[in-house]
Amino acid sequence: MRHTISITVENKFGVLTRVAGLFSGRGYNIDSLNVAPTQDPNTSRMTIVTRGDEATLEQIIKQLKKLVDVIDVQDFREGESVDRELVLVKVNVDAQSRAEVMQITDIFRAKIVDVQPKSLTIEITGDESKVEKFLSLMHTFGIAELTRTGKVAMARK
Amino acid sequence: MRHTISITVENKFGVLTRVAGLFSGRGYNIDSLNVAPTQDPNTSRMTIVTRGDEATLEQIIKQLKKLVDVIDVQDFREGESVDRELVLVKVNVDAQSRAEVMQITDIFRAKIVDVQPKSLTIEITGDESKVEKFLSLMHTFGIAELTRTGKVAMARK
Repeated sequence: MRHTISITVENKFGVLTRVAGLFSGRGYNIDSLNVAPTQDPNTSRMTIVTRGDEATLEQIIKQLKKLVDVIDVQDFREGESVDRELVLVKVNVDAQSRAEVMQITDIFRAKIVDVQPKSLTIEITGDESKVEKFLSLMHTFGIAELTRTGKVAMARK
Repeated sequence: MRHTISITVENKFGVLTRVAGLFSGRGYNIDSLNVAPTQDPNTSRMTIVTRGDEATLEQIIKQLKKLVDVIDVQDFREGESVDRELVLVKVNVDAQSRAEVMQITDIFRAKIVDVQPKSLTIEITGDESKVEKFLSLMHTFGIAELTRTGKVAMARK
């Protein structure tokens, strides 16, 4: 099962290494990770998207909660949270395909953020299914470069 | 000086710990970090926003390039890249302030992604100056919760 885990930590950099170590030490697969400060400059929030068996994850979460610099851990199952991701993708285009890529960009309410003679750089945000659908369409034109932030999530409450 | 460093790595999880260790081992401050797969499922791209003295950073980049699983390192100075960040922010509202928060959201082309009796959850994407301006306005209403992806960047070429 897929989990999105949100961890609030004291804003000290060693924390990232320790948290990441808990996952990799147990051979637990991480799909994406991001960390940045919150509204309180003394704390950061880390979002980890992971998949694997429930029992192991429960143990990891128990251990996370014991770390000195960890303030809070939330384990979001699908549907319990608003989640969003941002992707920058550079798509190969020529005179013919440019218009087609622009149309699809428009349908997905994505944005063209840079134009070059042979490429368009597009910013798309959304939940996973929207982003994946868009990227699978762009694959048919040829993706030259891609960078994604990984998911961030917030409880619906 | 502020740097945005984009690192393409083999998609193995221990890499994150090693890369992070290079920075923290030299006492180098990291503002944000994210990592997620690229268009090639065997590689991931990591973006690190950092600040500190040039000489130390040059050494870190040299060492990064020597790591076995590091494929490419790009050091973007301001203006050389398109950079974007996504932020989810839960803002406290009441009957009076809701309309005002909605207006500001509209001006910034941000999106309301969840509504609760006492709060609005807003998604905003943009470069740093746009995001910071929006958040400073939201501070006057009261931020209940905030999670940001950290910056991703792509060369303008």
